[in-house]
Amino acid sequence: MQRLIFLCFTLFTLQAQIINALVQDFCIADLSGPETPSGYTCKPSANATASDFVFTGLRVPGPKIALIKASVSPAFTAQFPGLNGQGVSLLRLDFDPKGVIPLHTHPGAAELLLVTQGFVVSGFISTANQVYVAKLQKGDSMVIPQGLLHFQINGGGNAAVAFASFSSEAPGLQITDFALFGNSLPSDILEKVTFLDDAQVKKLKAALGGTG
Amino acid sequence: MQRLIFLCFTLFTLQAQIINALVQDFCIADLSGPETPSGYTCKPSANATASDFVFTGLRVPGPKIALIKASVSPAFTAQFPGLNGQGVSLLRLDFDPKGVIPLHTHPGAAELLLVTQGFVVSGFISTANQVYVAKLQKGDSMVIPQGLLHFQINGGGNAAVAFASFSSEAPGLQITDFALFGNSLPSDILEKVTFLDDAQVKKLKAALGGTG
Amino acid sequence: MQRLIFLCFTLFTLQAQIINALVQDFCIADLSGPETPSGYTCKPSANATASDFVFTGLRVPGPKIALIKASVSPAFTAQFPGLNGQGVSLLRLDFDPKGVIPLHTHPGAAELLLVTQGFVVSGFISTANQVYVAKLQKGDSMVIPQGLLHFQINGGGNAAVAFASFSSEAPGLQITDFALFGNSLPSDILEKVTFLDDAQVKKLKAALGGTG
Amino acid sequence: MQRLIFLCFTLFTLQAQIINALVQDFCIADLSGPETPSGYTCKPSANATASDFVFTGLRVPGPKIALIKASVSPAFTAQFPGLNGQGVSLLRLDFDPKGVIPLHTHPGAAELLLVTQGFVVSGFISTANQVYVAKLQKGDSMVIPQGLLHFQINGGGNAAVAFASFSSEAPGLQITDFALFGNSLPSDILEKVTFLDDAQVKKLKAALGGTG
Amino acid sequence: MQRLIFLCFTLFTLQAQIINALVQDFCIADLSGPETPSGYTCKPSANATASDFVFTGLRVPGPKIALIKASVSPAFTAQFPGLNGQGVSLLRLDFDPKGVIPLHTHPGAAELLLVTQGFVVSGFISTANQVYVAKLQKGDSMVIPQGLLHFQINGGGNAAVAFASFSSEAPGLQITDFALFGNSLPSDILEKVTFLDDAQVKKLKAALGGTG
Amino acid sequence: MQRLIFLCFTLFTLQAQIINALVQDFCIADLSGPETPSGYTCKPSANATASDFVFTGLRVPGPKIALIKASVSPAFTAQFPGLNGQGVSLLRLDFDPKGVIPLHTHPGAAELLLVTQGFVVSGFISTANQVYVAKLQKGDSMVIPQGLLHFQINGGGNAAVAFASFSSEAPGLQITDFALFGNSLPSDILEKVTFLDDAQVKKLKAALGGTG
Repeated sequence: MQRLIFLCFTLFTLQAQIINALVQDFCIADLSGPETPSGYTCKPSANATASDFVFTGLRVPGPKIALIKASVSPAFTAQFPGLNGQGVSLLRLDFDPKGVIPLHTHPGAAELLLVTQGFVVSGFISTANQVYVAKLQKGDSMVIPQGLLHFQINGGGNAAVAFASFSSEAPGLQITDFALFGNSLPSDILEKVTFLDDAQVKKLKAALGGTG
Repeated sequence: MQRLIFLCFTLFTLQAQIINALVQDFCIADLSGPETPSGYTCKPSANATASDFVFTGLRVPGPKIALIKASVSPAFTAQFPGLNGQGVSLLRLDFDPKGVIPLHTHPGAAELLLVTQGFVVSGFISTANQVYVAKLQKGDSMVIPQGLLHFQINGGGNAAVAFASFSSEAPGLQITDFALFGNSLPSDILEKVTFLDDAQVKKLKAALGGTG
Repeated sequence: MQRLIFLCFTLFTLQAQIINALVQDFCIADLSGPETPSGYTCKPSANATASDFVFTGLRVPGPKIALIKASVSPAFTAQFPGLNGQGVSLLRLDFDPKGVIPLHTHPGAAELLLVTQGFVVSGFISTANQVYVAKLQKGDSMVIPQGLLHFQINGGGNAAVAFASFSSEAPGLQITDFALFGNSLPSDILEKVTFLDDAQVKKLKAALGGTG
Repeated sequence: MQRLIFLCFTLFTLQAQIINALVQDFCIADLSGPETPSGYTCKPSANATASDFVFTGLRVPGPKIALIKASVSPAFTAQFPGLNGQGVSLLRLDFDPKGVIPLHTHPGAAELLLVTQGFVVSGFISTANQVYVAKLQKGDSMVIPQGLLHFQINGGGNAAVAFASFSSEAPGLQITDFALFGNSLPSDILEKVTFLDDAQVKKLKAALGGTG
Repeated sequence: MQRLIFLCFTLFTLQAQIINALVQDFCIADLSGPETPSGYTCKPSANATASDFVFTGLRVPGPKIALIKASVSPAFTAQFPGLNGQGVSLLRLDFDPKGVIPLHTHPGAAELLLVTQGFVVSGFISTANQVYVAKLQKGDSMVIPQGLLHFQINGGGNAAVAFASFSSEAPGLQITDFALFGNSLPSDILEKVTFLDDAQVKKLKAALGGTG
Repeated sequence: MQRLIFLCFTLFTLQAQIINALVQDFCIADLSGPETPSGYTCKPSANATASDFVFTGLRVPGPKIALIKASVSPAFTAQFPGLNGQGVSLLRLDFDPKGVIPLHTHPGAAELLLVTQGFVVSGFISTANQVYVAKLQKGDSMVIPQGLLHFQINGGGNAAVAFASFSSEAPGLQITDFALFGNSLPSDILEKVTFLDDAQVKKLKAALGGTG
């Protein structure tokens, strides 16, 4: 018993001595603070609790969008501050029958798509202009390199669910249709740089809220 | 029609001209070749097909291990060569009731655990020696910083399934019990550096195949 | 004089001794060898000459493409093997009056565009769907973040020239029109993921050589 | 028409839903704020305008310095805050006849020098103590690895202009003569660590403002 | 003389002109400020003195801990703020006869151990579960990959001293015994995830202050 | 006993199953193979022994160089192949009385100098042209940012020893005097880019073997 007390005393001493050598395991984002090129400033680590490392926002599908018959629910730093600096994040995709995730890129990360229900047709286009398309079933995964145009389509007759993982907590998301037709990019410029017809541009701008 | 032919000709010319400016979107690992600090050398990209980017090995649970009542199925570069250089990977965990993933670390990546069936108790220990434990249900995720000791336990009475994503295609896996009791590390050294009793060490070495 | 001889001898000794401590300053790509996630393997550094570090291929404009009234000449690793591993590269753009560089992304690098003759209208679209467009004159530069959609248009009535620098020797280039209409991506999929009309897709596929 | 209104409504909904998943495309430096190892803190991205991404300070040569018959005009983060975190920057060099950029290093970046007018002799010295020198004409470029000693000299009889790109927004600049003779480094130490004669040191210290 | 004055004037002008192009050489941590994923914010660089770059805290051994017969003295960012962002740090280890550094990992860095007095037995265990152990004498060094379990033991009959260098200013330190037995991790969970006997767990928890 | 056998069987099964998930802990350089931008290709990891991770070449001083009254002994990848990819390396410096390490840079790493015997005066010059000099005694350390000019001088009347750690396995070494006077850099160019007198250049070229 005496030995245990001794052990206790001496090892506690070691612990106390080393404690200020410890460094950053995590950096829970202070979303109200400034950003830096490496991410948000950290909330004090001493205040962290287990809930800072847990995200429950993907339990259920996000609100379904009628046109695309799908929902998109991110768990990036903005939603899950515990991911700040950790280099990984998630996105939940829910597809109704005929649901589709329109052509888009993630400028900041590679994606690893995992199907957890139903069938999903997933494809990407390389800078060598090759098209890689595969039909995935539950349990299958597909990797999509950083920044390349890609899409997903429900590949079966029933609902489908997939989770995308990313090689960054901040993958970004640029949906091509929104970037073209959903902002103030002037139509004359847009037509010059896409070779799309004016009628087509006007139609999709009207639909997607584009001005200019 | 004439205009389209012209368009076709001129844009093909542009495409041909730019084609050799294209660079590496992906680097499918040649597992038979040498490694480098950045990963395996690449198979020729011209030979790539969609199947190089797809992994079907996680459709079903890996073989269940009786003791831990769980199975562990990685999709790292060694299993999924298309991940080479992409900075992301997956691991499927299947738990029977009372299943457990023993204490371990991933020296090369942060983990983002996603529960897809049942309940999982997940926890990690920081370098500040704080313990963060949470019970996750289907759809919940938990982030575990790189290199920290952590574990998972089935948190319900039925089977559970989880998928772990990693911030590297090569997260590594060091199960503490194997590292201590499942190799040639001499018992006298092991006892000195862990304060474990000789009987405990001998018992687990016998169980885990340790020698020395 | 004796002192100089002594100095010479001793410092040469130092030089000989240290020489094998020297490490990689550069890694001239062996384009015939395998790639790795960090780039090409290096040609033996002892064979390097000044010409390995010099690129003369941008002295004159590349072949002008009638449709876009512009030419695009890269100096990436594939053209300039001395850039391998150096994290920087160049692209020369020559615009006839009304010349345009169609909407595109560089998945692997930020761009810093420098106008060296005439006027160029340059713009990009952020993931927050904001449009940033500016008219640049000779000597002006514009930064375009990695992976975002952007374009350039001749902004004056005469020829214009610009040089784009990149934060990588392998920025990649994905021209949206080629990715959509210039490959084997099936039209039905394309229409689902872009909301473009079938007639528009067929027209541009015909023009750009797309099949499927 | 009804369909377009529906399309408009539903896609707007998607946009609103995803908007908070967007992450940092850029980080315009708040030069008044603190720095971090990754750069300055960012100004709020919502306030950004196109002018934040444009730099007009290189339209004309900087003030010519009589001794070196040249001018040096940087566009680094300090001058062009939009470059913060983007990994690329510029430097304009203007040479009168016989102009010279004295021996220097960039501790934080590789350089890619592009000549846009006249002739420039550019050279660097490797850690293997090899000298690589080339005479560049308009349109030629030369890569100079990070941290190595290098120089540029007007290589013709008329004015010359070059733009250097860098693999960092913060390449740094250490001009050897200033580091040796333009500060408070004591002469006795300087002579010990360079083997330069005392008279030479005193002469250049007098010229360059060195003390000590 | 006139020429020197002229030289002085013109080069000073150059210096003044370029001075604001200079960027961050160092980032002395403001330990009172917020952290970011890349480290602490910097103290104003203009206030830096030589003492900010010097650490004198490793002149003598830290307090010896009776149980392990050793002392552990870090020079990480928390002790030596000048290391912030520099990617390197130190740790001094002093061993009495029979001294031992218990099994531990550094989640954030590789270690390069250098023995400066006596003999040290150093070992690590790979993720392939191989054990690499070596006896080092004064002047010997051993590299230990990031995140792997390792230990050091006095290998002679007299005192020994070693200095560990790290590939990060924030290597972290997780001592396995503390992580298992020195915090609030519940014994039932601990036993499930380690296969250790309850008696062994209770004994070491009592010794190391563990609760739960 | 039966339980132990069972335990043994089942955990071995787990180990066998997981073994091919293991990834690269280390990459011992095959110095005969090609380099890549990330370092040398790896020798097969299965052949590694403890001696691959140990370097004994720094037990004694390197050959003393009369002029500088010091010796310089690197343990970089070229000498210690086990460091390949590990991001850390060492250099041993031995000083006789009046010994000096001439002005130099490490283009590829920050340095952390540790004095282990005697006194050393260490200094560096920042890009803001500030001089930071300190006299270090046994146990003191000084950090020197990447790529900046620095030097060391014996600061006492007796022998001194120091070990420099680096934030890279390939820090590089460029000794300013060798780069200026010890190669084929033509004297006329050298004088133009350094403002050194011709007599000074000729004298040191003669001493250091420079030609041209």
